[in-house]
Amino acid sequence: AIAAATVEALNAGPKPLAGKKLLLTAGPTREALDPVRFMSNHSSGKMGFALAEQAVALGAEVTLVSGPVSLATPAGVTRIDVESAEQMLEAVLAALPGQDIFIGCAAVADYRPLAVADNKIKKSNERMVVELVRNPDILATVAQQQPRPFTVGFAAETDNVEQYARDKLARKGLDLIAANDVSKPDQGFNANHNALTLYWADGHKSLGHSDKGQQARLMLDTIADHLACQ
Amino acid sequence: AIAAATVEALNAGPKPLAGKKLLLTAGPTREALDPVRFMSNHSSGKMGFALAEQAVALGAEVTLVSGPVSLATPAGVTRIDVESAEQMLEAVLAALPGQDIFIGCAAVADYRPLAVADNKIKKSNERMVVELVRNPDILATVAQQQPRPFTVGFAAETDNVEQYARDKLARKGLDLIAANDVSKPDQGFNANHNALTLYWADGHKSLGHSDKGQQARLMLDTIADHLACQ
Repeated sequence: AIAAATVEALNAGPKPLAGKKLLLTAGPTREALDPVRFMSNHSSGKMGFALAEQAVALGAEVTLVSGPVSLATPAGVTRIDVESAEQMLEAVLAALPGQDIFIGCAAVADYRPLAVADNKIKKSNERMVVELVRNPDILATVAQQQPRPFTVGFAAETDNVEQYARDKLARKGLDLIAANDVSKPDQGFNANHNALTLYWADGHKSLGHSDKGQQARLMLDTIADHLACQ
Repeated sequence: AIAAATVEALNAGPKPLAGKKLLLTAGPTREALDPVRFMSNHSSGKMGFALAEQAVALGAEVTLVSGPVSLATPAGVTRIDVESAEQMLEAVLAALPGQDIFIGCAAVADYRPLAVADNKIKKSNERMVVELVRNPDILATVAQQQPRPFTVGFAAETDNVEQYARDKLARKGLDLIAANDVSKPDQGFNANHNALTLYWADGHKSLGHSDKGQQARLMLDTIADHLACQ
């Protein structure tokens, strides 16, 4: 009854994103070394899925491009599953036309193995060297489109959080960035809580420490405010 | 009713492993590159967890050392969670004294990054090289103990399956090895079914194609036969 009441309250609330189309990415990517081995990261996808769920409640039409995660698709969300960064970029570009907002919440692997072996690599030497090449930058690619959606990124850092976040905001030409310090316990990758700080060109806003649903709601409210002032 | 009947049938069946202590490993390991990135593999842990469940039904006292998986602990099983190969080896050696059977079912990463960064590595270059060093060989380490349990390994291969399996059996000094061809659909890492072939010094046995619970049961029956003949 409490859950149903919450859903009703959400659905009955203001709809600042009514009529808006939101595209977002979530989860990690997996970059194959061979048919069985891969490189990945600790992203659970929880923040991106929370954003998708809350955005639907705020009236948006939501498309979620997700890496491999163990999460159920929120009601009303169109979900596209991918594995690698290259697959994620392809899915994002295909879904991009007509979107009003893009949020790059996925922890996209920065690098992928240069060569992917067709068969399982046999271990032989005491040491091994893996050559990696840079993956496409999905967020920067979206920000460079003309026309482009209101483009939002995330910065998950372990040190110098504000400096790295503001640098990323400027370098990639984003409209807004959400920074979190993943070195702290109970926030970030696998946690159910977060403590985001939003930065934009001439301002910032701390969202305090709360569960990811509440952080998502506050973040989307801020995005809606920015869209309304454009 | 069918599930309850199955459980009852299992519990009412013969107990060829009564009084035996079984230690097994399951799942992948994760080898950290930095606080957020890791190398891993596609092992789901399903086969190891099926073995643990069936071994309890056959009367064994079961300890399961598991890498990161999304599976519930079978009833009656003592579970120890680990992340890396080094942590898995430590847990296995600590639990080993008094064990009658060891089954190395985990897909242990063969290599780990030489250096683990304390902070998240910043991407900077177009290319990057990761130096890897060999992980400890948990299976071979167990097989070298004196006294040692009846020691069973797995060979997940994409080509030349029998040749690699027999080579691994001899090289590591195992008592038995279970081979599967992970290049085939619907068997191996993420599948619910498997098609194992068991090899030992002077024989082999194909278990056909069935769900992992049935494969586990057939495999444990074969192990019990070998123990009875020692």
